[in-house]
Amino acid sequence: MTDNDRVTPICVLGLGLIGGSVLRAATAAGRSCWAATASPVDAEAATAEGVDVLPPATALRRAAEEDALVVVAVPLTSVPEVLRLVDQHAGGCRLTDVVSVKEPVLRAVESHAPGVRYVGGHPMAGTASSGWHAGDAGLFTQAAWVVTTDEADPAVWAEVASLALDCGAEVVPAPAREHDAAVARVSHLPHLLAEVLSAVAEDGGPLAATLAASSFADGTRVAGTRPGLVRAMCEGNRDALLTALDDALGRLGVARGALATTGSLRAAVEDGHRAHVRRQRAGETPTIAFELPLHRPGALDELAELGRGGARVTGLAGGLVSGRRPDPAG
Amino acid sequence: MTDNDRVTPICVLGLGLIGGSVLRAATAAGRSCWAATASPVDAEAATAEGVDVLPPATALRRAAEEDALVVVAVPLTSVPEVLRLVDQHAGGCRLTDVVSVKEPVLRAVESHAPGVRYVGGHPMAGTASSGWHAGDAGLFTQAAWVVTTDEADPAVWAEVASLALDCGAEVVPAPAREHDAAVARVSHLPHLLAEVLSAVAEDGGPLAATLAASSFADGTRVAGTRPGLVRAMCEGNRDALLTALDDALGRLGVARGALATTGSLRAAVEDGHRAHVRRQRAGETPTIAFELPLHRPGALDELAELGRGGARVTGLAGGLVSGRRPDPAG
Repeated sequence: MTDNDRVTPICVLGLGLIGGSVLRAATAAGRSCWAATASPVDAEAATAEGVDVLPPATALRRAAEEDALVVVAVPLTSVPEVLRLVDQHAGGCRLTDVVSVKEPVLRAVESHAPGVRYVGGHPMAGTASSGWHAGDAGLFTQAAWVVTTDEADPAVWAEVASLALDCGAEVVPAPAREHDAAVARVSHLPHLLAEVLSAVAEDGGPLAATLAASSFADGTRVAGTRPGLVRAMCEGNRDALLTALDDALGRLGVARGALATTGSLRAAVEDGHRAHVRRQRAGETPTIAFELPLHRPGALDELAELGRGGARVTGLAGGLVSGRRPDPAG
Repeated sequence: MTDNDRVTPICVLGLGLIGGSVLRAATAAGRSCWAATASPVDAEAATAEGVDVLPPATALRRAAEEDALVVVAVPLTSVPEVLRLVDQHAGGCRLTDVVSVKEPVLRAVESHAPGVRYVGGHPMAGTASSGWHAGDAGLFTQAAWVVTTDEADPAVWAEVASLALDCGAEVVPAPAREHDAAVARVSHLPHLLAEVLSAVAEDGGPLAATLAASSFADGTRVAGTRPGLVRAMCEGNRDALLTALDDALGRLGVARGALATTGSLRAAVEDGHRAHVRRQRAGETPTIAFELPLHRPGALDELAELGRGGARVTGLAGGLVSGRRPDPAG
């Protein structure tokens, strides 16, 4: 909840897994919510469950009238088309999104809906399923939900963070570019490596398949994700993924050279294991609380710096952002 | 059990996770078992649980006297030293091993214990833990246990397969070289990719770590394995791992080129997903039973061909090998 006496209503565009879950969670938190979707199947299913599903223009005009927060929850490829509708019917609204990359959406907003007050979002949650039926009000519980800090209006930032908190998530403040670089390493690269591992194993035939144990099952699990979804995420984050991929290719090349010439994989194996152990330890490190008045000049830069250090925002009240960050002495 | 009236006793050399589990499982199956180990800690712990732990020379002389099957359950780097002891004290014995690569062990046997009747083995089971205390009689239940078919004496092959079946495993017959090529793709490459992914993510700092979700956790889980164990597996299978790694590097390079020039990852993502779906379907394909008289000329080559097709041996009685193979009509 924000400081307003009145809780901001939510207009969700797109009722797939993420949009449908946001709508359910925000409704459960007591928000007034309505939606639009290009999918007749999702529209029918959501309407049958009592959701107020409107034609896009109607939904957006109502958002303008009621000063709602508009949530774009469509695939990246559909974002420009949806933004043109937003521009047409609710051109000055407060807007966020739940798309898995942030710089491309930011650029699309600048091009197609320059009048909106935009702050990007990305809840780090999902399942292999899609569509309204796959959604769940509890999908975001304790998940990280990135809220971007680029040139944002603190009041709109607070609205978006407040929605994320209402959905049960923890807010990670980050600039769009840094978000994209980070998810390239921890989400998009893992997907690409899983696809390649899956294909390499198939070249080993049925014998390799029957000998595959848990290391292989773990390493290829996300190759079961719908290819369209994987491509949308990875291709939408091309520049950052290329950087992460080149880093991986460089390390694999060095490991290959060492194995071929000296027979040793010491550096590759020990580097990877050490990084793993450090992450495990960081997860167990004590955290300390922080508080920060959001309307202080430079507050969003301070939040971005906290996010860079692994902090999460867990509360927002009275103009004060509160959360936990790793204890530097821990 | 084999056709002999008398059940073959088992002499296990090494009482770590795998050796200790083999000893427990074989004892539970009614075999007479004894062991030797270079680890005073494992020796003391096993002795306290009633295991007959002997000095290596004594254990091997008893193996020669009682015509036992000797099981080498030490790391690859210790195999030559153990084989020299075998040669000295039980030079003509029946021998198998549980090491994770098979050609290097086969070559070591030819060099250091040329008189033994060797058939290699590799149970595809394990945990992140090690040592006698980590062992478990149920570790091999329904696991694949490769038994090599290279120039083997069918009677010794039957002894080794019988031990695997007594331990609750299913036998996958394979030539040593094909085993090594297969595990490079489904076990050693996944470990190396996990190590590299783990290191690449660390370069993303605490922000990347806090945004890591299940795709990252799955993709890096085995980076938690003890580095010495990962190096022993991967470095011991150098040639096959280089082949698998070059395959992965080639696919990643092509994907990188496509992403950089056309923006598309279609081929990489669809190839990986298709292979994943085909493996899932193969796992659900009906199997049909087969039987094969082991003493028929070429029987081991027939078994290798069955293994190549994904078959598993589940029984051995009256000189007849029985099992299940994928139904070609399925």
